[in-house]
Amino acid sequence: MSIDATALRPRISRLQAAMAAEGIDALVSFKPEHTFYMSGFNPVLYSHPVIVILPAKGAPTLLVHALRVAHGRDEGFVDDLRAYGVWSTTQTMGPKWEDALQQILIEKGLDSKTIGVEADATPVARWKTVESLVPSATLADSSKLIDRCRLIKDPDEIANARIAADLADRGMNAAVAELAAGGTERDAVAASTKAMNDHWRKHLPDIEVADFGGLEGGAVSGLYTWVLSGERMFRNCDNSIIRKPESHDACAIFIWAIANGIHAENERTVIFSDVPEANRAALKTILDIREEIIPMMKPGVPLAELYHITKRRLIEAGYEKNIPGRIGHTIGIGAHEHYSLDGVTDVIMEPGMMFTLEPNLRVPDQNVSTQISDTILITEDGHEFLTKSLGGLIEV
Amino acid sequence: MSIDATALRPRISRLQAAMAAEGIDALVSFKPEHTFYMSGFNPVLYSHPVIVILPAKGAPTLLVHALRVAHGRDEGFVDDLRAYGVWSTTQTMGPKWEDALQQILIEKGLDSKTIGVEADATPVARWKTVESLVPSATLADSSKLIDRCRLIKDPDEIANARIAADLADRGMNAAVAELAAGGTERDAVAASTKAMNDHWRKHLPDIEVADFGGLEGGAVSGLYTWVLSGERMFRNCDNSIIRKPESHDACAIFIWAIANGIHAENERTVIFSDVPEANRAALKTILDIREEIIPMMKPGVPLAELYHITKRRLIEAGYEKNIPGRIGHTIGIGAHEHYSLDGVTDVIMEPGMMFTLEPNLRVPDQNVSTQISDTILITEDGHEFLTKSLGGLIEV
Repeated sequence: MSIDATALRPRISRLQAAMAAEGIDALVSFKPEHTFYMSGFNPVLYSHPVIVILPAKGAPTLLVHALRVAHGRDEGFVDDLRAYGVWSTTQTMGPKWEDALQQILIEKGLDSKTIGVEADATPVARWKTVESLVPSATLADSSKLIDRCRLIKDPDEIANARIAADLADRGMNAAVAELAAGGTERDAVAASTKAMNDHWRKHLPDIEVADFGGLEGGAVSGLYTWVLSGERMFRNCDNSIIRKPESHDACAIFIWAIANGIHAENERTVIFSDVPEANRAALKTILDIREEIIPMMKPGVPLAELYHITKRRLIEAGYEKNIPGRIGHTIGIGAHEHYSLDGVTDVIMEPGMMFTLEPNLRVPDQNVSTQISDTILITEDGHEFLTKSLGGLIEV
Repeated sequence: MSIDATALRPRISRLQAAMAAEGIDALVSFKPEHTFYMSGFNPVLYSHPVIVILPAKGAPTLLVHALRVAHGRDEGFVDDLRAYGVWSTTQTMGPKWEDALQQILIEKGLDSKTIGVEADATPVARWKTVESLVPSATLADSSKLIDRCRLIKDPDEIANARIAADLADRGMNAAVAELAAGGTERDAVAASTKAMNDHWRKHLPDIEVADFGGLEGGAVSGLYTWVLSGERMFRNCDNSIIRKPESHDACAIFIWAIANGIHAENERTVIFSDVPEANRAALKTILDIREEIIPMMKPGVPLAELYHITKRRLIEAGYEKNIPGRIGHTIGIGAHEHYSLDGVTDVIMEPGMMFTLEPNLRVPDQNVSTQISDTILITEDGHEFLTKSLGGLIEV
């Protein structure tokens, strides 16, 4: 890339400001979500480590295996791309990432500085390897620093979140229709997955739907639906089964979609005609609470205020034993980012933050459960619902 | 469960024999693949840690968040299930996993013993937390011990691998048909995903297709297809694009499927009518090599022998600059387990081992690439192809 990509990415400036404030001279990251955040590159598979080195001033360096060079250059926004390993005739810095990383840190004068590495994500063996490569450096935990910067989304992330949310809405509409037509949990999953894949394959040429791989594999598609009916709603997350909901069931549909590395979540409760009054009452309580707290989704409001109101209303409605631990969370590169709408998280809403809003009830002794979640962006003067599919009481 | 589940799981005996040999008194694992291996439980989401404690003698203990108790009991094979956290009226050992883990280690007399934790997977912060919970214990790296035990699959794992391979075959057949019908990369992905989902939703009531979640999300379906056409084959792994292969293209189809936590891989190269002679020659070379080395997939043969023969034949055929780093890997709970069919891995084939076999060529300066992979089980007297879909030269 010939343009100054760094200037286009406010997140690099945010990270560097936070590094300066904390006395961190460079970040070295192996965490897939974070190497993507700082480079724009997701190879899906991480068996060969992808490493980003971000100094406190200047542009990031992306270090990849030789076989990922072309891919990294096409997809990422980093000019300074280095390679390790042996692959065909590609020139590299050496056969091993360890040697290459050491050379880069020495070259940038970082080998006796303070280097931030995520202690909550970096395996202890790898942490010790970095220590041994630069024994005069001090390693500091950068987990919270990066998590905090991720709270505010960049314009490209917001644009992708809108696309992910639209995919999730399409998946939701297809799942609701399939349940209404008498399908099983799995029929709804398959219909929903097909609807999302069909939209992607026809209409989203520039959108990748890959998620981030783990230690032994990769997630080449992150368009996920799961459906849990009746008391299976208490599982929260599970593979769906071949079960047709009964006429007295409530049924939860969960959709997670991803577009160019950014997630959206859309979750709805569908009820059938004979659902007991206790379920309807719980849903009404939740919908009333949503009406009350949604207008509070705006700059300046502490996350905890929404939680405290929810808790108060649930107690007033008789659900004092069923208070959820949180009523939402930050979302973006992670389906579950690390800040919660709970009673203790000390964050105030700002434009560019993105949350799921999901006050919900689980009342096992009444076999009552609700699941409604939207992905919501905080704007300059309020909020924007990114997920727009039919909310409220969905009776089929 | 009332039966002695441990007796049904040879893997627990293998692990305990290895622990005795290495002087490890207990394993404590947080790694999703390994907590599943030792408990049978995959909650998909791991935001609340799932922990298995396996002493050198006796049964494992499974420690989960209160909201996963019912799920863990239904799905896992561990009798001793403990809970932490606060959820509804469930009794737990305390609000935090740290307190519960400490109590369990003290109760079992392990707090001053040698405890194995995976250094290649456990975040440094969590490793240090375990150290602080049992300061008189010695933490040892158990990564390789567990990886070695995973080399031999248990009967239940083999049964699930056959189902995963059959799903992958169905996905492959659908993708080949879609490309033959003139579809784009993504059309083939969508058709393949639909075929796998349709078989699962109708015919596999007892099979979960969830993969293992990471630090910020989960993979509720691990039925993955990706298609790379023409020079995009050099990417190895990437999200597919809206591109219809040209008549002179080779095209790689990659399928990964999972059944109850066990993966299979099926990868094929499809060529179109006008594909250059260089591609045909490369494919013939690879198919000839496969003919020669497939009969060597049997007990007693060192993995490296297959690699050395492949290397020799590639050199003889003029591909001395294009020798792959490996020609396959172990597979099972991981799509990419940790042993390679390469020149240095010191493993001899035994019954119950499961490999991908994938000698392949990448010749960038000729724009030539091949991709063929099968999942193969080593049996008492030879091997069994788990993936059975049309191999060889697929011309459409």
